[in-house]
Amino acid sequence: MSPASSAWSNSLNTLSNPPPELSAGFRATLARIAGDGCLLTDPADCWPYGYDNSRRHARPQAVVFATNEAQLAALVRLCCESDVPLIARGRGTGTTGATVPDRGGIVLSFERMDQILRIAPGDRLAVVQPGVLNAQLQQAAGAAGFFWPPDPTSAATCTIGGNLAYNSAGPRAVKYGTPRDNTLGLRAIDGHGDTFRTGVLTTKGVVGYDLTRLIIGSEGTLALITEATLKLTPLPETSRTLRAVYADIHAAAHAVSAIMAQPVTPCALEFMDGAALATVRHYAGLDLPDGAGALLMIEVDGPSAGIDEALSAVMAAARNAGLIELRRAETAAEVAALWKTRKALSPALRHIAPKKINEDVVVPVSRMGEFIDGLARLSDESGIRIVNFGHAGNGNIHVNLLIDPDDPQEVARAASCLDAVFALVLRLDGTLSGEHGVGLEKRDFVAREIDPVALRLMREIKDRFDPAGILNPGKGLPEG
Amino acid sequence: MSPASSAWSNSLNTLSNPPPELSAGFRATLARIAGDGCLLTDPADCWPYGYDNSRRHARPQAVVFATNEAQLAALVRLCCESDVPLIARGRGTGTTGATVPDRGGIVLSFERMDQILRIAPGDRLAVVQPGVLNAQLQQAAGAAGFFWPPDPTSAATCTIGGNLAYNSAGPRAVKYGTPRDNTLGLRAIDGHGDTFRTGVLTTKGVVGYDLTRLIIGSEGTLALITEATLKLTPLPETSRTLRAVYADIHAAAHAVSAIMAQPVTPCALEFMDGAALATVRHYAGLDLPDGAGALLMIEVDGPSAGIDEALSAVMAAARNAGLIELRRAETAAEVAALWKTRKALSPALRHIAPKKINEDVVVPVSRMGEFIDGLARLSDESGIRIVNFGHAGNGNIHVNLLIDPDDPQEVARAASCLDAVFALVLRLDGTLSGEHGVGLEKRDFVAREIDPVALRLMREIKDRFDPAGILNPGKGLPEG
Repeated sequence: MSPASSAWSNSLNTLSNPPPELSAGFRATLARIAGDGCLLTDPADCWPYGYDNSRRHARPQAVVFATNEAQLAALVRLCCESDVPLIARGRGTGTTGATVPDRGGIVLSFERMDQILRIAPGDRLAVVQPGVLNAQLQQAAGAAGFFWPPDPTSAATCTIGGNLAYNSAGPRAVKYGTPRDNTLGLRAIDGHGDTFRTGVLTTKGVVGYDLTRLIIGSEGTLALITEATLKLTPLPETSRTLRAVYADIHAAAHAVSAIMAQPVTPCALEFMDGAALATVRHYAGLDLPDGAGALLMIEVDGPSAGIDEALSAVMAAARNAGLIELRRAETAAEVAALWKTRKALSPALRHIAPKKINEDVVVPVSRMGEFIDGLARLSDESGIRIVNFGHAGNGNIHVNLLIDPDDPQEVARAASCLDAVFALVLRLDGTLSGEHGVGLEKRDFVAREIDPVALRLMREIKDRFDPAGILNPGKGLPEG
Repeated sequence: MSPASSAWSNSLNTLSNPPPELSAGFRATLARIAGDGCLLTDPADCWPYGYDNSRRHARPQAVVFATNEAQLAALVRLCCESDVPLIARGRGTGTTGATVPDRGGIVLSFERMDQILRIAPGDRLAVVQPGVLNAQLQQAAGAAGFFWPPDPTSAATCTIGGNLAYNSAGPRAVKYGTPRDNTLGLRAIDGHGDTFRTGVLTTKGVVGYDLTRLIIGSEGTLALITEATLKLTPLPETSRTLRAVYADIHAAAHAVSAIMAQPVTPCALEFMDGAALATVRHYAGLDLPDGAGALLMIEVDGPSAGIDEALSAVMAAARNAGLIELRRAETAAEVAALWKTRKALSPALRHIAPKKINEDVVVPVSRMGEFIDGLARLSDESGIRIVNFGHAGNGNIHVNLLIDPDDPQEVARAASCLDAVFALVLRLDGTLSGEHGVGLEKRDFVAREIDPVALRLMREIKDRFDPAGILNPGKGLPEG
């Protein structure tokens, strides 16, 4: 193990003993299929491809760099014959362990399939390889006057393939939707090693079943995506930013419902609860009014003509008895100042609790106040500090349990608290993941949300796409 | 046969001999399961449930009126045991024969499951039974300040269940998307008779595979939809209407691409080609300028503030060297006058060719001019008049072959022409159906669009959802 990986490993949760060596025959065939310079087998080289942002780690037995469909088809066939797991990976920014090879096997890195094949403004589409970075696509699309709406926080380093694997969205989803709403078609390879196309190049199409959206969000368990045709949206002309501070979360939640019930849909509607504000309050220059119990960051975009009226409509909806302060940014510097509180949160949390448990549950917007109340009760009962922020317009709440992982008692209480959080989410008609996905992290909770019949159908679909069970086995769905 | 049905039958294409009678035992069980007043078995009563707007007809062996999930689950189990086809039907407005029981069996009418269960403005959703009419939902949602974007021409008489079965959209899809983009979750019953939930109540969610969109567009072949949670959109404050007349289709197609490449997306972008204009030209009061070779109807909606600037942006994009006239409606009367040309088309076509072949193919917007040129060539070659109109913003073109069905030579030439139309669509990277679906009409052409691997996966999915093959057998996918 290299010194660098050894330093890393101190903060990682190693999931398995080193996997058994691959046979010499398998390795020879693998080398031929992977092609020159596209295979890593030295454990130290493989090591960095074994983790994701969940801090789980398991060393892959080999790493193959994907280069083309013929190579991938041959690789799937080889793994199929030899019963070796194949785990597709973008850049490892996922938070659920979905790309961690916990059962050994080959990590298939898409980082070199990073070409933007086509940007077609008149057809509002882009065709990309899965290893293209989200930010790279935004830049190329932006030059043509367009953007692709999904914008995870990790946009600078996450891949389109990963965004599709988890249906990862981000703040703009409130107005522009998730990858499922912004993808027209795919090329993919199933668990037999057979290549196929899904979807269309157009915004309408109803021939055959919708395999495109079935594969999006399936975390590499159904097929390897080799190409995606993405629906582009024209860049808005301008935007405006608001910060609304409320006495408590109920007033903020009430404002969110009121904003979502009027015609102007913001392009960002983010919130921080009182615990999140308390976490950053001691930072200098945040300029928060006294009594701040919840905060909304609101952005409105659109044509310059009418933007101020659109902002006024949102401001009117944001006003209620619990509003303490409503500030509107006029200049780029003012916009940055308003976002400062929100941006201070992540470093503050990392400082306080480097191993916080970060969930991304969703509840209907109308239940958000009730949910945050419930979380406060669970925090009191468990003694675990819970800090909440997230995408309020979608009811997508990042629930952060701040724990000391070296305290086994606290870890046990956190597990029990998390269990209660999930139960609360489901009682409020919510879902356990809005955009991070399931991976290993939430696999054992899936059966609480998905009913047994739907789960049977999902397993049967998995079984038909991947009868040998080699495509990212054990992720996404609970064990049979 | 009743006199009414006898009159109808003259214009219908009867698909099969009368099916064999159902056994007395089966009928007794069926009566018990259906419940009082929910079963028709008299051939004259069953007759009107055997057709759709494709003018195909086959008499069902029985008609059951769906009332609740327990009844439907028992019905599926009975059909499963006895190998009797079960064909879900809304109001028969489909155009592909998808609800015609061509193999006999039971037509399951959802017309009595017509309750709107919930409208939740703060959560932007509605929960409805499948028999709710599209117009009925729009009215209820409208009262709360919202609408559901899919708006087929048949909105006054088509059901939400039918809209979901075919992913039927309409003009607004160019801005607001299709049912797949506007549905959050479903309740459904699979071919085993097992009830399940799909999706979420929220606009984000990535737990398990996306069964919601898999079922949408599957034409009743995978599951019976018993309830749908629909995503609502706030009603826009106002709208503006334009009519743009061009010298030829290339100028119009160029304008469509230019409109779609700028930030203001119209809520309707409809077109008529030269042949369509020629068809209506002799109608009084249409007020078309000389040299009109193509027409666009454009609507822009949004907040009142900025609507005129939005309209101006679209007008600027609509202007090119081939533009002959650009008119803007200011009053309701002017809006109606502008739409008059477009609205005159359907009655004119019915008058000229009551049995026209109406296709709803799609090509990328940038290929539309090329496509219409190709159609003109095919019309010349075949001697069949082809009239085109449709949803230009999606590239969704209703291609109408005007034929005399009593002329066998013309019918044969039309079949060969249609074949060439489909070949052209696929050569231009298009799809064979934008919103009407496949049914019986296009079943034999599906394998030209969907590749063999994807088709195998679709068949395997069908086989897992419905192993007995009783749910609308023989529709949507080509024979194995």
